[in-house]
Amino acid sequence: MRISKLVGERIKEVPNGATLKSHILLLRAGYIKQVSTGTFTLMPPAMRVNQKIQNIIREEMDALGGQEVLFPVVMPRELWEMSGRYSSIKEEMVRLKDRTGHDMVLGMTHEEAAVHMALNTVKSYDQLPFMVYQIQTKYRDEARPRGGLIRAREFTMKDAYSFHATQEDLENYYKKVYEAYFRIFKRIGFKKFTAVKSDTGMMGGKVADEFMAVTDVGEDRLVICPHCGYASNMEVAVSVKDENDHTVSGEMEEVFTGNAHTIEEVCAFLEVDAKHTAKAVCYQTSDHRLVVVFLRGDCDVNEVKLQKIAKSELLPVEVEEFGLCAGNIGCVNLHVPAESVVVYDATLQGLENFVTGANKKDFHLKNVSASRDLNGVEFVDVSLVKESEKCVKCGHELTLTRGIEIGNIFQLGTKYTASMGMKVTMPDGTAKEPVMGCYGIGVGRSLASIIEEKADDKGLVWPMTIAPWHVHLCPLRMDDENVSALAEELYRNMQSAGIEVLYDDRNVSAGVKLTDSELMGLPIRVLISPKTIANSQAEVTMRESGEKLFINFGDLISELREMIRGEIEEIEK
Amino acid sequence: MRISKLVGERIKEVPNGATLKSHILLLRAGYIKQVSTGTFTLMPPAMRVNQKIQNIIREEMDALGGQEVLFPVVMPRELWEMSGRYSSIKEEMVRLKDRTGHDMVLGMTHEEAAVHMALNTVKSYDQLPFMVYQIQTKYRDEARPRGGLIRAREFTMKDAYSFHATQEDLENYYKKVYEAYFRIFKRIGFKKFTAVKSDTGMMGGKVADEFMAVTDVGEDRLVICPHCGYASNMEVAVSVKDENDHTVSGEMEEVFTGNAHTIEEVCAFLEVDAKHTAKAVCYQTSDHRLVVVFLRGDCDVNEVKLQKIAKSELLPVEVEEFGLCAGNIGCVNLHVPAESVVVYDATLQGLENFVTGANKKDFHLKNVSASRDLNGVEFVDVSLVKESEKCVKCGHELTLTRGIEIGNIFQLGTKYTASMGMKVTMPDGTAKEPVMGCYGIGVGRSLASIIEEKADDKGLVWPMTIAPWHVHLCPLRMDDENVSALAEELYRNMQSAGIEVLYDDRNVSAGVKLTDSELMGLPIRVLISPKTIANSQAEVTMRESGEKLFINFGDLISELREMIRGEIEEIEK
Repeated sequence: MRISKLVGERIKEVPNGATLKSHILLLRAGYIKQVSTGTFTLMPPAMRVNQKIQNIIREEMDALGGQEVLFPVVMPRELWEMSGRYSSIKEEMVRLKDRTGHDMVLGMTHEEAAVHMALNTVKSYDQLPFMVYQIQTKYRDEARPRGGLIRAREFTMKDAYSFHATQEDLENYYKKVYEAYFRIFKRIGFKKFTAVKSDTGMMGGKVADEFMAVTDVGEDRLVICPHCGYASNMEVAVSVKDENDHTVSGEMEEVFTGNAHTIEEVCAFLEVDAKHTAKAVCYQTSDHRLVVVFLRGDCDVNEVKLQKIAKSELLPVEVEEFGLCAGNIGCVNLHVPAESVVVYDATLQGLENFVTGANKKDFHLKNVSASRDLNGVEFVDVSLVKESEKCVKCGHELTLTRGIEIGNIFQLGTKYTASMGMKVTMPDGTAKEPVMGCYGIGVGRSLASIIEEKADDKGLVWPMTIAPWHVHLCPLRMDDENVSALAEELYRNMQSAGIEVLYDDRNVSAGVKLTDSELMGLPIRVLISPKTIANSQAEVTMRESGEKLFINFGDLISELREMIRGEIEEIEK
Repeated sequence: MRISKLVGERIKEVPNGATLKSHILLLRAGYIKQVSTGTFTLMPPAMRVNQKIQNIIREEMDALGGQEVLFPVVMPRELWEMSGRYSSIKEEMVRLKDRTGHDMVLGMTHEEAAVHMALNTVKSYDQLPFMVYQIQTKYRDEARPRGGLIRAREFTMKDAYSFHATQEDLENYYKKVYEAYFRIFKRIGFKKFTAVKSDTGMMGGKVADEFMAVTDVGEDRLVICPHCGYASNMEVAVSVKDENDHTVSGEMEEVFTGNAHTIEEVCAFLEVDAKHTAKAVCYQTSDHRLVVVFLRGDCDVNEVKLQKIAKSELLPVEVEEFGLCAGNIGCVNLHVPAESVVVYDATLQGLENFVTGANKKDFHLKNVSASRDLNGVEFVDVSLVKESEKCVKCGHELTLTRGIEIGNIFQLGTKYTASMGMKVTMPDGTAKEPVMGCYGIGVGRSLASIIEEKADDKGLVWPMTIAPWHVHLCPLRMDDENVSALAEELYRNMQSAGIEVLYDDRNVSAGVKLTDSELMGLPIRVLISPKTIANSQAEVTMRESGEKLFINFGDLISELREMIRGEIEEIEK
């Protein structure tokens, strides 16, 4: 490809509104262009990376026996009503009407379509197991698109669906997909990624793992045990909580705390540590029931866990509507409407000598004792894991980090086959609902996440396996006839040797060429100039390591091929 | 691929509502499954064909210097308002609102997106020409989806957009694309296809060609000159009209015709040939103006040409509202509102001694003379070409046929660059709007159309270049250990030799296996049975010709490879 004809331009300025490295560099290097909030045109270099990632995924899916299909993007309401998700999924799903007024949705995932395809075409256990997959454009009406391709509204996704006669068969297959996912992300070039246990969310089912590119700019919080390898999304992470101090409580006492309402204010006013307090955090359910969580003052609520207990999404609440006294709510002598959900977090278990609200304006209680004053209370885990807490598996200290979700896999059970009425005949003649797994990978998000891992302050840095081109051919002084003639020759020779090459055929300054080549991030830069020609050599620079070597023209093509092959092998080994 | 695990089933019955061969066979052979009106899941075999067609297209687009990109499916209203098409395209375009209430559309074509991409990134004439293309799912809210993939609402399409500094450069490039399209359809396996001049429709621009799969079930009517190669969509076809009889008109005379209103009734009543009548056909415009066309009684109105004259779509009309007398409208002494459009077709030029309505209830006029009674009238071509008419280029008789539009190419001019404000700096420093071309191919429609050309009454017949698999391995008597062991061995050997093979590993009757293999339509069937094994031979049958030969097992793999290679070469040569 000649850079003079490559659509897109390279710019120096950081584009307005872009804060993440991948977003900034994809825009600056002419890889993407924003069309509207959260939607982008993939320009030629990004499309090439996108396709290389797709090909890696396709190879691994085929190796798992996957059959590639294509489901419709626009689906009828009825299909989503069968599974119950037409109403359970909210605004993220785009709804529209066709010209006859029929309700349609834009598919954000295709469990329903996969079951629809198999309904009446897969009838017997001996047609199981099978897996189908597609690589398709999906649209989710994200409330807060961010970071370019990190969280876009429209994106390319691989989604796969497997069907099994038994849970055991699903579990065996699930393990194989789990391993294939490690291969895929490795082949894409990730070094910093991990699988974590995760919430099943809108998919339903019981078991789920997420594949996370580990990076500080990730939206997901991860809990990792460096000792035994336990790894979990914060949403479902468990831990051994810090042991509470073994103090003995005196007599419970009401104290005036006036305008001290937040836990920080109360701690300052009474001169106690937050670890010796029980705070209340309140919500309401979508059907207007009160939800109150009590937990130790230095801890935070895990809302994903709480949602499961409350069986509802959690909305903000004005507690006065429910007769409570904001800023003075406490876990002793609390009066709430009968249908309320009141939860006591495990951090309160065994806590002595602590402060909590008095459920009375301007007052708190001192010297509260969990064992004495919270009699008969069931303590459950609804607090977020903290850094100092210990691994439930091995007892070692946990590490918190952040990640971007680049893939996820779910054991769905029979949620979709049961609701949509799909059954197969088993060997004994009975009819049984197959169990399903589903498996996603965000192609665009993987593309952006690898940039977060590898790019430096000069620009993009592509792994050889997914680089848009292998070589950036960079001749300086194109006005020199020797240079331009040799450049044209090298360009032709590289192409005939199967080397993917981006050729900077412009007659511009060395500064512009070198800056552009660093910004665009191809793995190998081949530079020629009157000076290198005088030595019959090309200057070859590796983008990632900065390593530089000089290669005689006679050896150049074969050396480049060897470097490309070696680098791909190194990544994939 | 083992057929026992292939998703989809093969059925004997003609599915309800399917009438076209391709629609019936794709459903019966388990290639597609309908999800809702006009939308389908592509099951694994169809997806394989789809991808092979895509790859052929991609190769030819790349050879033209095309750069692959990906535009968003969901686009903001603003983009389509810039070009004026947000209002000019009607119900075919799906509109929706995002969660913030912002108006969005589902892209049915991407001229706007292509200009948006180039805006501010292509600034100088020396970045021109360039061409970008994408292969993408598109959705059009068709009023009458029909024939499965022939006219689906959701479909895979390749769309390409080129930008040029001059009209001359566009014309040169357009010719190259035109030739590439011939190569593409040839490589897909079409023998019966043609390019025809066409209407530019909603794309705008002046020059357009359509690529048509020639078939009786096509929706488009084509006019072809077998002598000189003139070929046109009926919508824009021209012809030398039949010469009118050289009779001399007598004196014009009013005659009572009573209830004879249609041209057939009038001809029967007055015992004249329709060729000696001038009938009226009436419409109204969308802004409620009357449109009257007069043409010879044996001819029909070309509504596409008439729309251009009336500068409006044509709607049905109650002529009484405009003061006319239905059934008796005539071209002499017609009184209509001033803003009406009255058109006299070229077939009336020189017509003598003819009958037309008297513009008076129950009466017609006889002995009308165009030269005497239609003085000062301008005759224009608004009638459909008829079989007997002659080629305007060479004078030979024209042939009418039908076709399915599988591709189209347009010279767009500056319609989009001008409306969206895209300019490049020319060598002389002036700013100029680039001229554009756009180029589409329907992938799914090509897939279905090749079936219309090639399938027979036993099932599908795939050209080797796009067949989902090359070979159908068909072992009879899988309960025989020799057969099953050899079948497994052949299956493995074919795969390692790079032969794409569908392996019927089921233990079912010969009848089921042979019927299924004919239905699925792979080019080569390799049959083994206890009988062929006794002779150390496989029975090899070509699906298209029915040719059968016996090949020794030792030679089988190399012979198959040769047959596949030879067949692909034959198609592509």
